[in-house]
Amino acid sequence: MTLGRLNHVGVATPSIARSIETYRDLMGATVIGEPFDLPAQGVKVCFIDTPPSTGSGQGTQIELIEPYDDSSPIAGFLKKNPAGGQHHVCFEVADIRAAVADLKAKGATVLGEPRIGAHGTPIVFVHPKDMGGVLVELMETPTSNHDTRDH
Amino acid sequence: MTLGRLNHVGVATPSIARSIETYRDLMGATVIGEPFDLPAQGVKVCFIDTPPSTGSGQGTQIELIEPYDDSSPIAGFLKKNPAGGQHHVCFEVADIRAAVADLKAKGATVLGEPRIGAHGTPIVFVHPKDMGGVLVELMETPTSNHDTRDH
Repeated sequence: MTLGRLNHVGVATPSIARSIETYRDLMGATVIGEPFDLPAQGVKVCFIDTPPSTGSGQGTQIELIEPYDDSSPIAGFLKKNPAGGQHHVCFEVADIRAAVADLKAKGATVLGEPRIGAHGTPIVFVHPKDMGGVLVELMETPTSNHDTRDH
Repeated sequence: MTLGRLNHVGVATPSIARSIETYRDLMGATVIGEPFDLPAQGVKVCFIDTPPSTGSGQGTQIELIEPYDDSSPIAGFLKKNPAGGQHHVCFEVADIRAAVADLKAKGATVLGEPRIGAHGTPIVFVHPKDMGGVLVELMETPTSNHDTRDH
């Protein structure tokens, strides 16, 4: 596989509402999506855009993630980090199945089968033990530009 | 202040050499800078480029960070996370002194005075308690395009 664009950085939070206030009022974020539920993943999410390096490009997003309930996969992360914190990084790939096959052939531990993620394209996670302690999400590059407020 | 581009994600590692192998051989990274020392910050660093969303843009970089010695500010982080992990996110700002003044006026804890960072422009860190558990670096936007291999 070839490393694709850094689509977003996943940030766990006990409260998306409070995190939105922080990014808006303290850091000056201006493009903030509507929070939405991803019950199949056990999380609520909200994307905050950062500016691209050029006018026509797309910047890497901050993905705020809040547990959907106590069985949420990130509930454990928040128990260890009650204030929240950096949870994962997500790189785009052209073909998720080819990327998974390549990673498995190289001995990496891919967590489960590809499933539809927050941007509507297939995603999969790679175990942190293979990536220097960093939880890595791979997502298939969307075929059209993504609007964070259109879900 | 206005939230600027996500310049890089800082990833602590016990070995930049091994992390470079991982990003190159497992993830398919192709643009990897030469590691260099930042003794004033107590770290060695290496920037890995990710592709931009458009051909002429700049993607968000992964900044690998390895302790310079046992007194390094990230030595403690690696004691808690021996395999490494996500350490900080770095947003660009147009004017670091204006950003610091704005943050302080809003009650945020800015760690120290601006100093020259790995990209040669002034940087400063904001305490994680103000940012939902995320250590945030702010860096003044470089005035010219940055080449990761030109230090």
